[in-house]
Amino acid sequence: MHEPDFSQGAAFVRGAFVPIGEACVPITDWGFLRSDAAYDVVTVWDGAFFRLDDHVQRFQDSCARFRLDAGLPPERIRAVLAHCVRLAGLQRAYVEMVVTRGQPPWGSRDPRQAVNQFYAFAVPYVWIADEQQRAQGLHLSVSAIQRIPATSVDPRAKNYHWNDLTMGLLGALDAGADSVVLGDGAGNVVEGPGFNVFAVLADGSVATPAQGMLEGITRRSVIEICQSLGVALHQRALAAAELRGAREVFVSTSAGGVLPVTRIDGQPVGDGQVGALTRRIVDTYWDWHRRDALRTPVDYGASAPITAKA
Amino acid sequence: MHEPDFSQGAAFVRGAFVPIGEACVPITDWGFLRSDAAYDVVTVWDGAFFRLDDHVQRFQDSCARFRLDAGLPPERIRAVLAHCVRLAGLQRAYVEMVVTRGQPPWGSRDPRQAVNQFYAFAVPYVWIADEQQRAQGLHLSVSAIQRIPATSVDPRAKNYHWNDLTMGLLGALDAGADSVVLGDGAGNVVEGPGFNVFAVLADGSVATPAQGMLEGITRRSVIEICQSLGVALHQRALAAAELRGAREVFVSTSAGGVLPVTRIDGQPVGDGQVGALTRRIVDTYWDWHRRDALRTPVDYGASAPITAKA
Ligand SMILES: Cc1ncc(COP(=O)(O)O)c(C=O)c1O
Ligand SMILES: Cc1ncc(COP(=O)(O)O)c(C=O)c1O
Repeated sequence: MHEPDFSQGAAFVRGAFVPIGEACVPITDWGFLRSDAAYDVVTVWDGAFFRLDDHVQRFQDSCARFRLDAGLPPERIRAVLAHCVRLAGLQRAYVEMVVTRGQPPWGSRDPRQAVNQFYAFAVPYVWIADEQQRAQGLHLSVSAIQRIPATSVDPRAKNYHWNDLTMGLLGALDAGADSVVLGDGAGNVVEGPGFNVFAVLADGSVATPAQGMLEGITRRSVIEICQSLGVALHQRALAAAELRGAREVFVSTSAGGVLPVTRIDGQPVGDGQVGALTRRIVDTYWDWHRRDALRTPVDYGASAPITAKA
Repeated sequence: MHEPDFSQGAAFVRGAFVPIGEACVPITDWGFLRSDAAYDVVTVWDGAFFRLDDHVQRFQDSCARFRLDAGLPPERIRAVLAHCVRLAGLQRAYVEMVVTRGQPPWGSRDPRQAVNQFYAFAVPYVWIADEQQRAQGLHLSVSAIQRIPATSVDPRAKNYHWNDLTMGLLGALDAGADSVVLGDGAGNVVEGPGFNVFAVLADGSVATPAQGMLEGITRRSVIEICQSLGVALHQRALAAAELRGAREVFVSTSAGGVLPVTRIDGQPVGDGQVGALTRRIVDTYWDWHRRDALRTPVDYGASAPITAKA
């Protein structure tokens, strides 16, 4: 028996902890064959989960909306996630929890007869923007593709229905942009592949879409940060034209926090520099990672000094 | 080494043939994490594929629409599918081919950098209706959930974005129906979980939706059968009200062929009996399975008499 190598990440699969490279989902699981799954992503920053309870709570809400059952109480989910992080020895991690439908008994097409399956994994922290993009701001493209509407799939339940986002991303990359934001088909922007979007308007207030998108936990942090800074923030329909004409634009995601946007479809946002309010929100976001109320430290056990990675 | 047991089905995974129970997709493959995949399903009936070339052609079209590359020429795809069927020894099979995005190199979120992966599997023939439902007709429910629109995901590319269909199915099953049909949000029906839908109208003509749904190969067979029977068939928007008021209703799918619908939301369709035209189309559909032009016999090799199953 070889020692399992968790250095690339660790996963929890069918009750066992395995190296991320060995983690797989049965091809017959409806989680794959029908994208019948709910998930969530929480991060670990400098040895502690950030807003863990909020993510586990949203995960449970997503499961309930899709009539999926993780089969584990929240405290056990938290323990499994922490053990994945511990095994991988990651001080900064991207941690995903998933429930799939599983598969109904042979011949049945009744989802109620399937045994749902819980998965989890921890890998090194993921940034949706590289260092240069973080310093100089992202170049976003507004896609003609419509985000899957709430009348079809409940966007508040975190799900893998991403074809619209992926095809939009491909178009944006081809056009020389860094990422994409999708609309609602009525002239408003909604969200991008893994992030919410915000505009700082001429009057200094912030606007972010209210409907048709995932209610990001990082979005929640931004809303709370604006409150704490005394900045007015409005959750309402945000026209693509307002985004293009905004003074500042930024996006929010667990995979990188608050990220400045300085170009949209090749045109500069405001003066084309990372905005002052955006900078304050970015800084506050990272400051909040030291707040005890939002941190859940990971117990790395004895092996932490040896296997911990930044 | 134990002999692999293909009796439940056979799969082609990362270049090897494995029993279906061992076939899995890496949890990190975007095919799972973003439902970034295209697929097709073809059936084997009494030892021969039905309309194999049409299915492989549609599969290639689906891949092209999603910018996925199977990495195998069509003749090799056909050979892999046939070998899955042969290994499983199935005279009647449900055969699926899949391409997933794979995953971009670590840290990249650029789909163009991923190595796409081809999968296939053969399992015993799947019926979306049991024997009684086939004899007496299905009870369909019309859902308030909207099928994911073409403005978001191209429905002509066969894909796993099924949350809308699955949530609709759950609602229908709870209400005592057998399955569900989703609409377009404008009063028209579109398709159900794995099938297209048809109404026989008062004037004896047949209507089926033209847009917003997968262009089923079984739907194509129905269109051609109607031509051959001299029955007028119109591809056009089909109002839910027309479906409810139709003389006959049926659905089409590779997983069962042409299936009668005799109740919609608890109300009988026409006189509540399987319609005469529906019966003719069902019979013709199965007759056509003996047409050489539509059949591709499977070479089961020497082991066929021993392992073949009905
Ligand atoms: C579609 C979508 N929107 C928004 C977000 C941002 O949510 P959070 O801030 O909770 O990461 C995500 C996160 O992955 C997402 O997938
Ligand atoms: C969404 C959807 N519509 C229609 C169909 C029917 O297509 P076919 O007749 O090619 O099986 C399917 C097949 O699975 C499907 O998934």
